[in-house]
Amino acid sequence: MQRVPIALGERSYEILIGTGLLADESAWAGLPQSAAALVVTNETVEPLYGAQLVRAIAAHHKAVHTVALPDGEAHKDWPTLNRIFDALLANACDRKTVLYALGGGVVGDMTGFAAACYMRGVPFVQVPTTLLAQVDSSVGGKTAINHPLGKNMIGAFYQPLRVVCDLATLATLPLREFAAGLAEVIKYGPIADMAFLEWIEANLAALVARDPQALAHAVRRSCEIKAEVVGQDEREAGLRAILNFGHTFGHAIESGLGYGEWLHGEAVGCGMVMGAELSKRLGLVDAAFVERLTALVAKAGLPTRGPALGADRYLDLMRVDKKAEGGEIRFVVVGPPGQASMRPAPDAMVRDVLAACCG
Amino acid sequence: MQRVPIALGERSYEILIGTGLLADESAWAGLPQSAAALVVTNETVEPLYGAQLVRAIAAHHKAVHTVALPDGEAHKDWPTLNRIFDALLANACDRKTVLYALGGGVVGDMTGFAAACYMRGVPFVQVPTTLLAQVDSSVGGKTAINHPLGKNMIGAFYQPLRVVCDLATLATLPLREFAAGLAEVIKYGPIADMAFLEWIEANLAALVARDPQALAHAVRRSCEIKAEVVGQDEREAGLRAILNFGHTFGHAIESGLGYGEWLHGEAVGCGMVMGAELSKRLGLVDAAFVERLTALVAKAGLPTRGPALGADRYLDLMRVDKKAEGGEIRFVVVGPPGQASMRPAPDAMVRDVLAACCG
Repeated sequence: MQRVPIALGERSYEILIGTGLLADESAWAGLPQSAAALVVTNETVEPLYGAQLVRAIAAHHKAVHTVALPDGEAHKDWPTLNRIFDALLANACDRKTVLYALGGGVVGDMTGFAAACYMRGVPFVQVPTTLLAQVDSSVGGKTAINHPLGKNMIGAFYQPLRVVCDLATLATLPLREFAAGLAEVIKYGPIADMAFLEWIEANLAALVARDPQALAHAVRRSCEIKAEVVGQDEREAGLRAILNFGHTFGHAIESGLGYGEWLHGEAVGCGMVMGAELSKRLGLVDAAFVERLTALVAKAGLPTRGPALGADRYLDLMRVDKKAEGGEIRFVVVGPPGQASMRPAPDAMVRDVLAACCG
Repeated sequence: MQRVPIALGERSYEILIGTGLLADESAWAGLPQSAAALVVTNETVEPLYGAQLVRAIAAHHKAVHTVALPDGEAHKDWPTLNRIFDALLANACDRKTVLYALGGGVVGDMTGFAAACYMRGVPFVQVPTTLLAQVDSSVGGKTAINHPLGKNMIGAFYQPLRVVCDLATLATLPLREFAAGLAEVIKYGPIADMAFLEWIEANLAALVARDPQALAHAVRRSCEIKAEVVGQDEREAGLRAILNFGHTFGHAIESGLGYGEWLHGEAVGCGMVMGAELSKRLGLVDAAFVERLTALVAKAGLPTRGPALGADRYLDLMRVDKKAEGGEIRFVVVGPPGQASMRPAPDAMVRDVLAACCG
């Protein structure tokens, strides 16, 4: 078991990474005792790992309840969130109740937001079971639900007590979901660590084969980079935005096609290609970098061309991005490779990028 | 204009109290400039004070939008909250957008919660126009919406940038609403300051006549006591709960009858009588104290007997109170007069209190 600390003062916590942690007592030691716990999961994950998690935490709580939400980004909305509140209130769960998020990014984001709001805040633990959630969404305390007019528009910064990444759960992950998770792994290269990008290029086959050693390295290094960034800028005053490389274009794709049509990681993969193309046009990287990143995204099994939503629609969708200010869209760009920053770009240039990368 | 500071470290702010502040530039000086602002109000208050507020803040923002919610506690729910998010997104409001809560406790609680959640947090200003909101709900950062199974169950601790109490707005407050606000004023006596209780007894007629001097003193002293308590315990780890004297019984009345049937302050007035009766049975105050408080509540125009919901229903409703732990209800009790604390009570004793005080 490896431990990656996230240093956030009194909100500090650890990410535990290892194979078989659901059955490993030491991964759960030290979590609070309470009358009640609620495991929030989805209908796909519950039959696979629900019972294991309930067993792992049984000694900590007098009663462990479970709510299984419908699966998928299309359900990351208020009515589904409210099912968590219904379950908490129907069981008269008090302020000490611990929530456990067992599933992917959607389950983690919703459970975290429910924990932030229920009785104005109860503790929660992330138990991510997808690659995307283990390397990105479960770490750092961003929680949210979607609004029809924009992704992750309603949420909170709210840190978990702990993140428990059991790599064994990745064995059952469908290939499409796995590839989507690789997008967020790849992301850490261009924004922070080109040596890691090289390692991913060299080890992609081992990752796709779910080799435990390769997975352990990819998850740990991803979490280390994210921990470093979040530790410096918990509430995204500046630096943290670099973790959103590819996401401004990606969110527009997800929202424009309807949530769930493309997986979040698929949209981010394609969005990184667009972000690299924009970086090139801004003179920050050369064409070879764009080709290299595009090749890796394709090899990971992810789309590299965006859907033909039309440039006007893309621009409208991106203007409500959380990084926008006063109607000006701000993009995360890369350059030199291994470093990222945020800046606006002329509409005409963005239209050129969309023309080059979509349809 | 009087200023009451709330000391909460980097979240510190001031409560400004005076007559005519909506038209007083100095009350708005120093608030942030931004591209957009959203005034959240209700259909009753908007025609009375909406234009004045828009004028007061016009110099701070390029565009000031307004959303007027339906009036009343029955609308303190998700669909109504979502109208705030709709307005923000339809106007492409960014992360720097300032929200202004113009209205009573319902508007303030919903606006604050919307500000806490929109893009994971935007700044907001409280502009309370009811006595209840000026002396209690606008101060201290508690925000929430109701759930059918419990009051204020979904919310956040989220502090405003400033609270601007224009006493002139109390002139248009219906008598029933004014009396409801008096409940929260009276509350500060038994829990913290019996000299203030004496002052209220002596000045009740002046208050009901909306005498500006009397109002200014009542609002200021109430805010001072609340500021003192909140400054010591922002997130209700302990002490802050004393501000909820009368509220455990009161919330059960509101929820049991259906939100909006009794006003919040009416339920709290009656709840304080029940809380005093419980304190007496626990040996903390004498019968004369209960009679004195009951007489003042009645003189303020508030109900002193609870509705006949049945003891079982009261107990069920109180068991989901946020102060309950492991199914044990914890009541705020008074004793000696001027001091309060939180403790459990035997079910049989609570049933005796309900039998004595309801129907």
